[in-house]
Amino acid sequence: MASVFTKIINGEIPAYKIAEDENHLAFLDVMPLVEGHTLVIPKKEVDLIFDLDSEAFKDLWAFAQQIAKKVGAAMPCERVAVAVVGLEVPHAHIHLVPICKMSDLNFQNERLKLSAEQYQDIQKRIIQAEV
Amino acid sequence: MASVFTKIINGEIPAYKIAEDENHLAFLDVMPLVEGHTLVIPKKEVDLIFDLDSEAFKDLWAFAQQIAKKVGAAMPCERVAVAVVGLEVPHAHIHLVPICKMSDLNFQNERLKLSAEQYQDIQKRIIQAEV
Repeated sequence: MASVFTKIINGEIPAYKIAEDENHLAFLDVMPLVEGHTLVIPKKEVDLIFDLDSEAFKDLWAFAQQIAKKVGAAMPCERVAVAVVGLEVPHAHIHLVPICKMSDLNFQNERLKLSAEQYQDIQKRIIQAEV
Repeated sequence: MASVFTKIINGEIPAYKIAEDENHLAFLDVMPLVEGHTLVIPKKEVDLIFDLDSEAFKDLWAFAQQIAKKVGAAMPCERVAVAVVGLEVPHAHIHLVPICKMSDLNFQNERLKLSAEQYQDIQKRIIQAEV
């Protein structure tokens, strides 16, 4: 069965997309730890990120680097933290989390509940951020 | 002033090194969240990982991929999680954390206190892991 992320890639599930190219997609996490929490995924459905072949792995991170710079420029934060955990969705994904303090990156934290308007505003700010 | 990591690179502070090449170093975190918690750093002292130029950034992740595979093979775990936070040491570093559950990646968790023998045993297992 296709992962929830593959369904997003295929347009079967809506998402607040930030950027996309042939092999990668970035979109807002709908269970965000903080505003601006963004996911970066390879379109290829692979569970373990380290199982990507070396070139695909490097390309994914290069794509993530550009997105992280935009997230950092758009959102008030100390820096953009990175996490790859992947115990819930078996489709490799990089969390980009604009944090102000260490504890912002705790996945046990309660997730934010944002309105569609809030997501759209964040989406627009990140897309339009100049880096 | 040189960062604590630059001092490790220069051999002024000892570390349980896992692997090294011209531009990168991997060594055991001495405040580990779990056994096998490993740090990967660029030798170039840069605070924000996303400020590395694109090639250096990709090369760092390619190096980390190889280390992560060894950590995953050597340590009992569900998968090797990744985190870049960097609020304590202003020298970019990637955490590779062999986790069994989501909460293993919480940086507020109490850190393990291991003996030199334990570190040496883990170091040896990771270095010798076949991937």
